[in-house]
Amino acid sequence: MVDLSTACVVGVDYGTLSGRAVVVRAATGEELGSAVHEYPHAVMDRRLTAADGRSLPPDWALQAPADYVEVLRTAVPAALAAAGVDPADVVGIGTDFTACTMVPVDANGTPLCELDRFADRPHAYVKLWKHHAAQPQADRINELAHRRGESWIKRYGGLISSEWEFAKGLQLLEEDPEVYDAMAHWVEAADWIVWQLTGTYVRNACTAGYKGIYQDGAYPAEDFLAELNPHFAGFVRDKLEHEIGQLGQRAGGLSAQAAAWTGLPEGIAVAVGNVDAHVTVPAADAVDPGQMVAIMGTSTCHVMNGETLAEVQGMCGVVHGGIVEGVWGYEAGQSGVGDIFGWFVDNAVPPQYVAEARERGISVHELLTEKAATQAVGAHGLVALDWHSGNRSVLVDHELSGLVLGLTLSTRPEEVYRALLEATAFGTRVIVEAFDDAGVPVNELVVAGGLLKNRFLMQLYSDVTRLPLSTIVSEQGPALGSAIHAAVAAGLHPDVRTAARAMGKRVVAAYTPDEDAALRYDALFAEYKTLHDYFGRGGNDVMHRLKRLRREAVSAATADAAAAAGSDAFERQAR
Amino acid sequence: MVDLSTACVVGVDYGTLSGRAVVVRAATGEELGSAVHEYPHAVMDRRLTAADGRSLPPDWALQAPADYVEVLRTAVPAALAAAGVDPADVVGIGTDFTACTMVPVDANGTPLCELDRFADRPHAYVKLWKHHAAQPQADRINELAHRRGESWIKRYGGLISSEWEFAKGLQLLEEDPEVYDAMAHWVEAADWIVWQLTGTYVRNACTAGYKGIYQDGAYPAEDFLAELNPHFAGFVRDKLEHEIGQLGQRAGGLSAQAAAWTGLPEGIAVAVGNVDAHVTVPAADAVDPGQMVAIMGTSTCHVMNGETLAEVQGMCGVVHGGIVEGVWGYEAGQSGVGDIFGWFVDNAVPPQYVAEARERGISVHELLTEKAATQAVGAHGLVALDWHSGNRSVLVDHELSGLVLGLTLSTRPEEVYRALLEATAFGTRVIVEAFDDAGVPVNELVVAGGLLKNRFLMQLYSDVTRLPLSTIVSEQGPALGSAIHAAVAAGLHPDVRTAARAMGKRVVAAYTPDEDAALRYDALFAEYKTLHDYFGRGGNDVMHRLKRLRREAVSAATADAAAAAGSDAFERQAR
Repeated sequence: MVDLSTACVVGVDYGTLSGRAVVVRAATGEELGSAVHEYPHAVMDRRLTAADGRSLPPDWALQAPADYVEVLRTAVPAALAAAGVDPADVVGIGTDFTACTMVPVDANGTPLCELDRFADRPHAYVKLWKHHAAQPQADRINELAHRRGESWIKRYGGLISSEWEFAKGLQLLEEDPEVYDAMAHWVEAADWIVWQLTGTYVRNACTAGYKGIYQDGAYPAEDFLAELNPHFAGFVRDKLEHEIGQLGQRAGGLSAQAAAWTGLPEGIAVAVGNVDAHVTVPAADAVDPGQMVAIMGTSTCHVMNGETLAEVQGMCGVVHGGIVEGVWGYEAGQSGVGDIFGWFVDNAVPPQYVAEARERGISVHELLTEKAATQAVGAHGLVALDWHSGNRSVLVDHELSGLVLGLTLSTRPEEVYRALLEATAFGTRVIVEAFDDAGVPVNELVVAGGLLKNRFLMQLYSDVTRLPLSTIVSEQGPALGSAIHAAVAAGLHPDVRTAARAMGKRVVAAYTPDEDAALRYDALFAEYKTLHDYFGRGGNDVMHRLKRLRREAVSAATADAAAAAGSDAFERQAR
Repeated sequence: MVDLSTACVVGVDYGTLSGRAVVVRAATGEELGSAVHEYPHAVMDRRLTAADGRSLPPDWALQAPADYVEVLRTAVPAALAAAGVDPADVVGIGTDFTACTMVPVDANGTPLCELDRFADRPHAYVKLWKHHAAQPQADRINELAHRRGESWIKRYGGLISSEWEFAKGLQLLEEDPEVYDAMAHWVEAADWIVWQLTGTYVRNACTAGYKGIYQDGAYPAEDFLAELNPHFAGFVRDKLEHEIGQLGQRAGGLSAQAAAWTGLPEGIAVAVGNVDAHVTVPAADAVDPGQMVAIMGTSTCHVMNGETLAEVQGMCGVVHGGIVEGVWGYEAGQSGVGDIFGWFVDNAVPPQYVAEARERGISVHELLTEKAATQAVGAHGLVALDWHSGNRSVLVDHELSGLVLGLTLSTRPEEVYRALLEATAFGTRVIVEAFDDAGVPVNELVVAGGLLKNRFLMQLYSDVTRLPLSTIVSEQGPALGSAIHAAVAAGLHPDVRTAARAMGKRVVAAYTPDEDAALRYDALFAEYKTLHDYFGRGGNDVMHRLKRLRREAVSAATADAAAAAGSDAFERQAR
């Protein structure tokens, strides 16, 4: 029997550029120590730096799986040391990962890129979530699914993403069939890391559902796959299908090898894999239906449990047991949030502002927020569309782009900045209303992620959505969420819901809507919504046409440049 | 008899902040010398610095008429000295002025502000063209004119501006009736300065038509004026009506006093007053129908002669003899051009760009243009609306505002800058097409003004409009144009048309359209036009609503601040 009062668990959060381990007291969720390890190869999006450095085509994004193992060997022991915890007191480990991030492996789970014969083949590496080069394959999947009236497409707001398992898998088949043939399993990194910890491959219910089109116990049918490409007919049967583990379950015991890497006791519980956004829900103690958790960083991911199955317009997906076992987990998203603010600060703020921020020892973001906050609602006369990275929910259209309207010769940088902050809040409101309209009501907004530090932004979101806004307490929400799953897998709590109550924490209603401000924002939101529908629902497809013009212009210019450089050079480049 | 080979004339251009005199050889237009004098009181838009320094309300813009006389006393002699010309060889002087810039005077032509009893009365000063505080009066004039179906309103694109004689006059009556009553004449500064030179008041046909609603030999009727305000019934009869002089005619001989000021011979010809934009037409030798002269600076003014009278959508005005005697002079405009580029440079360019420009010893405008010019047409994926100052032609709507659409996280400052340059070119194309559609075809674009130095911009305008683009040779076009009028008034040339051939100059077709680029710009222009009509013609009045929200927010905030500061302070401010 484990003593709950002393038992600890470890959570490991695998992000885009680094992995973070945290040691947590299983009874209370108290965070005792943590450590971060940056991936040596980071994201390979221009060159294959893990091998011969060959250049990669546009929209590629690869990673080296050995970097993930390094996190186990360095960050976990460092977190234990920082916590001052006796490793013998650790009774479980849980992990979460970016998704959909895919590893092609052989039958033993060895990544193909680690085999000598494939080491210089880009398709043998990990395709990171933001590898977007499978868009043509995604387009074909969507076209065919709608043409055939596949029922599963509705579970994904009508669109399968180029980021997900099928599009990336089809790209692999069509561009490097030899690697595809050599691949025994097409594995989510979330599950591959658990395989490394336990020696056993268990496919987690979350990514299988959200990224693997696993719905009601089935995948897309073989004849659907064959119609995409005859060689793809066996994709599910040969590469994807595998035993599913529910979130919070024990995937296996820590292997001797993984115990040696981490310094943790062999045989302790290893939780089924999970995804960074979804695992944050219990970390914020926000597992109940109606509690929408928004993880706000460069982009925003919205996750929420619902009692019933509904078709929410433009959601990313709905998966039974996708967040917590036994209920429907809904996911939606905004593809650009903090990165829009960052783009503005990097590209559109004049020297005197940057100098003022430096002199005062604050960030440009803080300076702009401070200046913007002094204005009355609507005083800037602006409205913006937050589509600089396209629109994930509810329009599900990556060809959309950003807009700022209402500019005058007296418009100042902080006013445009505020209009962009507001636009993202309006984007959230559109999503909340889509859930409400679909019969999945939202009654609390729970914010996690880096942007919660901006108090003006938080109040703005509360005013615009007219929802109480709670904030997660932990500064390392995903890692805590993974630790919570470890505690459940280790049997210290009966289920994730109970564990969340004990170990997760949020400041309830840290912000509440100001009705006067809310009324004024209503007027701006009405303008946002009109523009949203006009540009996003076919009233004027100018954004699509501009993207096409842009591609044509760039490719014509590239061809001209190549021609000017001479055919030899062009051929060298093409090889 | 005057010897044309040695005869010289002087042109004086009265701008917003300074007056410039140039001495010109009458036979050839050769510019022999020039000088500039800045107005000591510049523009009084915050405080009445010429008197007790009292604060002025928003949207006011006043000047002190004595500053204009200073130009005659300093810049004219300085220009003569710089030219090395014997004053005895000067046979005429001509002037041009900003318009509509209005001086309230007594029967002797003395500005009321120069009378002791009115020296501290803001309404006794010159109302500069950009005094915009008469908007409520302009709104009433327009509403009534449309309600009564006044035929003259069509000559002004359906809208009388708040900048013009009637709106400013009505504001004067309603806000300071005592000054209004003391006023013997409501005089264009263009005519007041001629009065100072000659001792005789002659009203020029140009401003009488464009700014004074003088059409087909008549002004708006007395019952129209009475309906605006019973006390305004006699406005035309008592304050405005006066002998009209045609452009290029001799208004009188130089008075002894003015000869003493300027050092010029007493009795030489003084030309009828004129306006800076209109006088530039002969300076560019572009007086023929179809030659559209665009004076491109902070804003753009388009002036062109036409053989026939037509109703061009959204023009600023059409006046018989308004540019050259005997033909119809058309005027249109873009309210924001160079000032939009300037606003962008001041407010939206990051430090590294400013530093790069400084290191390379070029302006930020030059740097952005250079970077933008390397891109293929359409490669930025952007389209903008150039309405940061509203739209003068063809929409005639000052409540419109600017827009940038197509922004992504990879959009760079030079790309937005280029989109703004393009937007102004598209705005010009809309105006050109409105003239073409009305049966007043444009077949050459003749550019004057500071922006002609930007070669990329000029090529862009030629490509977008598919017109040959000529550029004026003189760097002081308006002053040269005034000198041309002086030469005609002095009888050295039979008319302005002939004088323009001899003395005006342009580089004919300095830029010609590149058909490949023009085709690509067509695609962007189509998007501009769709947005132009959607936001400008009632499809979505969001810009109007945002301006209203802005005013409400600002006035509520001001009231709150005043309340917070206590009622005493508020009353002090209100007085």
